[in-house]
Amino acid sequence: MSNIDTLSVNSLRVLAADAVQKANSGHPGLPLGAAAMAYELWANHMNHNPKDPKWSNRDRFVLSGGHGSALLYSLLHLFGYGNLSTKDLASFRQLDSLTPGHPEYGHTVGVEATTGPLGAGMAMAVGMAMAEAHLAAKFNKEGYPVVDHYTFALGGDGCMMEGISYESMSLAGTLGLGKLIVLYDSNKISIEGNTDIAFREDVAKRFEAFGFQTLVVEDGNNLEEISAAIKAAKADTTRPALITVKTKIGFGSPREGMASAHGEPLGADNVKALKEKLGFPVDKDFYVPEEVYQHIEEINKKSEKAEAEWNQMFAQYVKAYPELKELWDKYHDENIGEDLLENQEFWAFPDKPEATRNLSGMVINRIKDLVPGFVGGSADLSPSTKTYMKDEGDFSKEDYSGRNLHFGVRELAMTGIGNGLALHGGLKPFVSTFFVFSDYVKPMARLSAIMGLPTTFVLTHDSIGVGEDGPTHEPIEQLAMLRSMPNFTVFRPADATETIAGWYYAITSKKTPTALVLTRQNLPQYAGSSKEALKGGYVIAPSKKEVPDAIIIASGSEVEISVKAKEELKKEGIDVRVVSMPSTDLFDMQSKEYKEKVLPKNVRARVAVEAAADFGWGKYVGLDGATVTMKSFGASAPAGELFKKFGFTTENVVATVKSVL
Amino acid sequence: MSNIDTLSVNSLRVLAADAVQKANSGHPGLPLGAAAMAYELWANHMNHNPKDPKWSNRDRFVLSGGHGSALLYSLLHLFGYGNLSTKDLASFRQLDSLTPGHPEYGHTVGVEATTGPLGAGMAMAVGMAMAEAHLAAKFNKEGYPVVDHYTFALGGDGCMMEGISYESMSLAGTLGLGKLIVLYDSNKISIEGNTDIAFREDVAKRFEAFGFQTLVVEDGNNLEEISAAIKAAKADTTRPALITVKTKIGFGSPREGMASAHGEPLGADNVKALKEKLGFPVDKDFYVPEEVYQHIEEINKKSEKAEAEWNQMFAQYVKAYPELKELWDKYHDENIGEDLLENQEFWAFPDKPEATRNLSGMVINRIKDLVPGFVGGSADLSPSTKTYMKDEGDFSKEDYSGRNLHFGVRELAMTGIGNGLALHGGLKPFVSTFFVFSDYVKPMARLSAIMGLPTTFVLTHDSIGVGEDGPTHEPIEQLAMLRSMPNFTVFRPADATETIAGWYYAITSKKTPTALVLTRQNLPQYAGSSKEALKGGYVIAPSKKEVPDAIIIASGSEVEISVKAKEELKKEGIDVRVVSMPSTDLFDMQSKEYKEKVLPKNVRARVAVEAAADFGWGKYVGLDGATVTMKSFGASAPAGELFKKFGFTTENVVATVKSVL
Repeated sequence: MSNIDTLSVNSLRVLAADAVQKANSGHPGLPLGAAAMAYELWANHMNHNPKDPKWSNRDRFVLSGGHGSALLYSLLHLFGYGNLSTKDLASFRQLDSLTPGHPEYGHTVGVEATTGPLGAGMAMAVGMAMAEAHLAAKFNKEGYPVVDHYTFALGGDGCMMEGISYESMSLAGTLGLGKLIVLYDSNKISIEGNTDIAFREDVAKRFEAFGFQTLVVEDGNNLEEISAAIKAAKADTTRPALITVKTKIGFGSPREGMASAHGEPLGADNVKALKEKLGFPVDKDFYVPEEVYQHIEEINKKSEKAEAEWNQMFAQYVKAYPELKELWDKYHDENIGEDLLENQEFWAFPDKPEATRNLSGMVINRIKDLVPGFVGGSADLSPSTKTYMKDEGDFSKEDYSGRNLHFGVRELAMTGIGNGLALHGGLKPFVSTFFVFSDYVKPMARLSAIMGLPTTFVLTHDSIGVGEDGPTHEPIEQLAMLRSMPNFTVFRPADATETIAGWYYAITSKKTPTALVLTRQNLPQYAGSSKEALKGGYVIAPSKKEVPDAIIIASGSEVEISVKAKEELKKEGIDVRVVSMPSTDLFDMQSKEYKEKVLPKNVRARVAVEAAADFGWGKYVGLDGATVTMKSFGASAPAGELFKKFGFTTENVVATVKSVL
Repeated sequence: MSNIDTLSVNSLRVLAADAVQKANSGHPGLPLGAAAMAYELWANHMNHNPKDPKWSNRDRFVLSGGHGSALLYSLLHLFGYGNLSTKDLASFRQLDSLTPGHPEYGHTVGVEATTGPLGAGMAMAVGMAMAEAHLAAKFNKEGYPVVDHYTFALGGDGCMMEGISYESMSLAGTLGLGKLIVLYDSNKISIEGNTDIAFREDVAKRFEAFGFQTLVVEDGNNLEEISAAIKAAKADTTRPALITVKTKIGFGSPREGMASAHGEPLGADNVKALKEKLGFPVDKDFYVPEEVYQHIEEINKKSEKAEAEWNQMFAQYVKAYPELKELWDKYHDENIGEDLLENQEFWAFPDKPEATRNLSGMVINRIKDLVPGFVGGSADLSPSTKTYMKDEGDFSKEDYSGRNLHFGVRELAMTGIGNGLALHGGLKPFVSTFFVFSDYVKPMARLSAIMGLPTTFVLTHDSIGVGEDGPTHEPIEQLAMLRSMPNFTVFRPADATETIAGWYYAITSKKTPTALVLTRQNLPQYAGSSKEALKGGYVIAPSKKEVPDAIIIASGSEVEISVKAKEELKKEGIDVRVVSMPSTDLFDMQSKEYKEKVLPKNVRARVAVEAAADFGWGKYVGLDGATVTMKSFGASAPAGELFKKFGFTTENVVATVKSVL
């Protein structure tokens, strides 16, 4: 271990400790303990070019233990990513700084994923490794490994305890993702104390059970040992690798080995003691010896050269395989699919009653031909969610070119992996499960929304329409759960046109994930449905008068009884407008004028009809309106009986409208 | 394997196949494959008494693969639980039947837990085993093992793939729950096909890594082999056990070994073929040979005797340890805590600004002395969530008497385990994590609500008040997520009195789980706060006039700026009422008159103030009101700066009130 290496590692430590201390907030424990492995990886094993952070063939690095952000920022600073300065480090965790409390994708150059919720980075890394494997299978030719990189994830005991890391790593092992390497910062300390209180698991053995190569670094400060392990991990490309690196939390500080080193500043005295111990000047903050900067500059020269070589190869590849270059551009075209708006074949549908899940399946099989980077799958439910892409093969250990992904019964990992697929670049992923299981999807869907990833969620079996499977399988409050999330669009179509509109929105979305919420049961087609659905809410059945006596607002399967109720009320001389509202999110974004046109403020007799919790409808029906909604969990019976039992009948809608007149 | 045993096993198969076929809906695959292990367990190894399904010392059986409900109902019928008849089996999955699509706790006698979401039963079984271990440590005396039973869970590949099963089983291994026995119905088939597509994990090795004893039954139809494995599992009481039972999905039917056997009726012809193969009359439905009923009756006699012996022992125990009997009654007193309503010490608090998480910690340490069955803990965050019970010890492998549970970083399993603790009986559990991580908690909290379990969720760090940890750690839409769920009470207190009220509600709740949503930051105490908080919403700062000019509705930390805004507006001659709304759920349950008193319908100038998504507030502010709420995710900065940045200032509340006047 050379002096300059030691100095570099300790520079990372001191920068991180200073950042946390200056902010008087943050987590010094991981940065001090894991600085050596991070340095060794970034300096000597990762194929990346800080000058070009978006180089498509760079190795990916995900700090799954996102609370160790001070380490990541220190690395980004030393390696020169985005010119992140010591001033930026000194603004750690301050308003509008480039160095927020947890790493934020799209905010700080060089951050590959937003992390913080433990284990999430593990799933995202699996997604990135799957993307790499898929794109390599699609594009690489002999002598032209244009897609050929590793994905590294670094996480600690917390990441290992979270279910998502088991789920995703079990799948990674199954798929033999040989270019996925997990660095396990094993320090035996959790917030409540020694990990023995809750986590005595033999982690390496577990990963062996998953089909991983497992390696151990006994001394987490020994760069040679770390280096040897990473080399061995890289050499085995048939299995993903777990490297257990034994570390000491808060290394070098007086709080070394203590739970208190995890999540609070060390204190000025302890930072001083740390600097003294590491031989750094105690009176200087954010100090890095000049020779460290020079050392990293030398390393970066090699990195630049690596990318230059790749660029050269790619240029030859383009000449040798012009048709693949064309395809490559399609994969990387952010605006792909936009012309579908005027594509009549895309908007065509058979005019008969149909379940929106089936219609979605039809659209998926259209999109696959038009958007080659479109990949996805389900958490072991594709025969039910109708998400299988015909003739596109299955992504498996034996063949990574398949576009149908099999996630197993792992909704949470699926969603995290979906994020990783999207983060990697080149792919447009969708994931799928029953709508009720969006409960499991939620934590990672939130990360999709925070990161602004346009992943599509195909969520079928959308209400008590599920029928016999009963309350555990019948979504009630899930619409409210997803609609209430910022930067997340929920779309619950009523028929074929609206289903196609939902998919059009989803596939062309740039920065917002979309959930398509679809029925198990057949729904009719409406004469009044149109591309106006893209506005979220629109008049699907107009009143005779310009100002109606009442407005019924409905979504999805409940548009049917709403339109029928309108007809019934007409017989009684009550003139009703029916508004189809597939997406409250999109409707809320329309102009004031448009919203007033659809829902005139002076019409107070309003009824919302939706086979879900009424939560959120008050905004549209106000204090004088009413709702026909679910007041409880569902029940187990044939769907038709349930709709009756819970009041989703034309008669009840009619009566409710009358009650607010 | 005797003839009568074979006949009994096949009776279960035929009953289940008939039930699914009659319903034309359901899952025959698991019942046919797992009938033998279920029969062997129930007939020869489980210590239970169908005549007394609530016997406290019965072995618990959880069908984690809840889709196999037809098997469970067939068992309940054969063993005579709750007189479940073949008529009930013939009403499988029909409206209001005793045999809904998935097993429902509290609905069908003998069902120990509602299952269906895969893996959930695994966590609940762990909770039951923890409850047993804890109560045994508290109550057993030499010669008096009054709490001494096993917990069995049966699940398949789906259960094994779900993160919750890893999380919960890793904890079970850590805790050495020797009386937990998992039967793994290993048939290698999932809905999308052979498990090889997504799940090549060595499951036994994984459980070894968790610290389990692992056993294999090569022939899942061999009762002797199954029996030997269960005996060996029971004999090792220092480690939980996994028994891998190799089975064939849909055994005996023409769909044996096929994915199509999983989740759809076999079809009339296939049911006929099954009956033929098993030697059952093909023209009879729901037929059980009389000798099978007689055989089970003989078994049940032994079971009754077992309980009689226990009753005898318990009677002697009561004499020998009258003080423990008194304690026992307290543990099992469903009305415990109700007298706290008038207990002045319980409602006392230091009159100074304080974080509600700290106040909650104070209350927890009062409850623990008054409610001995009160146990709980956090997902590795107790120093932050303030949930540690002083002097009550830690629940660990070495000492099960501790009341502080350490769940590790496993929010989902924690919640499932909490359900298991509550289901077992004798305990009042709480679980705890950061509010933002209620996202992970949600799937199992939903089961708490469906089952009507009064578990308490202590969710701290409740808004952008989290500060520096940033958007991944700042709840925005979580209030809407939980409030929209049926039979679930969310309580977001504004000060000490309201925090105590929240806990009072939670601890005395009989059939509804409660989430206490608490601040990290200090809040003032209000003169106007009172036990009226138990009504969910009440006037905390009255207007001068009986009918105010405007109403501000706020919860938790936002009551402060609301009351200040009221004072400011007063100076301008605007007479405002402030309503504190700690619980919209409870407010909605009040009488029409009470609600009209607090929020008079003719006052339309209403503003809701809450540092969360506005979703759901439309119901209270209507079309003419406004909200001061979060429109996006949060950010990383000191909390005070964030409240300013996002508009949570007195000035903004004042301006918003004026805008609606």
